[in-house]
This record gives sequence, structure tokens and C-alpha cells, in this order.
Amino acid sequence: MLGEVAQHLTVLTLGVADIGRARAFYVDGLGWEVAYEDGDVVFVRLGHGCLLALWGGDDLAADAGRDLTRGSGSLALAKNVATDDEVDALVELAVASGAAVVKHPQPAAFGGYHGYVTDPDGVLWEFAHNPGLSVDPDGRVRIEAVDP
Amino acid sequence: MLGEVAQHLTVLTLGVADIGRARAFYVDGLGWEVAYEDGDVVFVRLGHGCLLALWGGDDLAADAGRDLTRGSGSLALAKNVATDDEVDALVELAVASGAAVVKHPQPAAFGGYHGYVTDPDGVLWEFAHNPGLSVDPDGRVRIEAVDP
Repeated sequence: MLGEVAQHLTVLTLGVADIGRARAFYVDGLGWEVAYEDGDVVFVRLGHGCLLALWGGDDLAADAGRDLTRGSGSLALAKNVATDDEVDALVELAVASGAAVVKHPQPAAFGGYHGYVTDPDGVLWEFAHNPGLSVDPDGRVRIEAVDP
Repeated sequence: MLGEVAQHLTVLTLGVADIGRARAFYVDGLGWEVAYEDGDVVFVRLGHGCLLALWGGDDLAADAGRDLTRGSGSLALAKNVATDDEVDALVELAVASGAAVVKHPQPAAFGGYHGYVTDPDGVLWEFAHNPGLSVDPDGRVRIEAVDP
């Protein structure tokens, strides 16, 4: 089924001031399901093939290498692909389409490979290959830590 | 299949400065599929049960009744539900969970019913009932205009 609709959003990361407070809101409050969590990040299921990440705003800004001012929210959208080469190609395509490179494709702290761009309105997108993330045929995302 | 993973994100709306420019980026540039468009908005498929809306930043700010400063982007997340009552209940639950009401639940310009809240970090969420939006069993979103 998954192949019928291309998946362009894999992770929506909110750079939050307090992960515990954010977790209390989304998980304890709204009752959304945790897909994975450790002391630094909580992944919540947003839907088929799609996760919400609650991550420290400072960590997100540091990872992107860019100050993220808080307007309607500090955040980054992510599209995951299957290989490092696809990350390179996607960044290249995005730039050719009007994006600005924020972080050139490179090995990522999470153990995969990624780059960041901003769309024409400044929305931050991460293009990533994460060997620890996969999507089952029914759209369920599996995510686990990998060795960097 | 869809029932196996709860769907919490239905529409991710980017409040953009120029819809044509944004469309050129996402549709013409990245090649993502348009689900619906008219002169005022473009809906692009983000994945199973999930759409990206490209909408005027001024329109989004006016609809939410809130200035949206542009940091990492002017945007709103939306979770769609099946009835007006569910919108009321979701806003109530969100507020009980730490959200702030931005727009109390009310008839929406698109022909349905909606309310806006901000999560604890100021991220804007719309909870909406839109009779023109439905999701097929395979996760494909159908969206069409309805009479307000």
C-alpha cells in the first residue's frame, strides 16, 4: 500500500524548551503513541510513515548549525531516503529548485547521513539517510538507535 | 490498514510569501504531487493521510487570528477529526494538557469547523472538521472545496 502515495515527510521535529513538558503534552496529555525514546529525544507517531520528534531546541539549532528563532515554532521537516547518494541528489535537486543549503550533506550525529536546506520561505528541511529507520508495508515506522 | 496507526497530522500548512514561488519549489522543483489547488491554495501530498498546504502567510495569520513571525517558518499543523463535537473535545483536551487557545472552536471559512491552539512551545495546531476531506483505506487523502 505504501508505494501508492509517495512519502515526503518522515519526521517533523519540534525544537522544544523542555522535552519533559512537551512529552507531557503530546504523550500524557493528548495520548499519542511513543515510537521510541531515550533521555534526549522522544519520537511520537504522527501517522502512516510519519513521526513527530520532540527534541531540545538548542540541540536542533546546533544540529542544523543555524539559529532557529521561535515564531510559530522552532522546527524542521525531514524527508528520509534509502541511501547517502539519494541525500546528495535530493539536496542538489532542492537547491536547483530554489532552496538554500544550510548544512552540506555529511555524516550525521545519529549514525546516518544528512543535509539541511531552507525552502524559499525559510522553512528548514532535513534530507536524511538513517539506517535505523524503516517503514513497514502498512506505514508503521520503525526507528531505533544506530552506532554513529 | 489506516486504522493500525492513528493519524495525528493531516495537513501541514506553510504560510508562504508567494504561493507561485512555493508551488514552483515543491511541485515543479521537487516533483511532489498536487492533491488539490485553486487560486488561493495548493495542497501537495506529503504521504499517507497527510498533505502539505501552501497558503498565503497573511491568510494563515488572518485565519488563525494571530501574527505569525517568520523564524524557521510561518506554519500550522492540523489534525482533522470527523465531527464538530470532536473538535470541541480535542481543544478541551489540548487546553487541559497545557495548550493555549488561540481561536475558540467556530465555523471555519473553508466550510467546516475549527479551532486553533498553541502547544507549550508556541507551535500552532489547528483542530478541524472538514466535510470535504476524507482518507481512503490506503491512506490517500481526498480533499475538495465545500460550501461554507
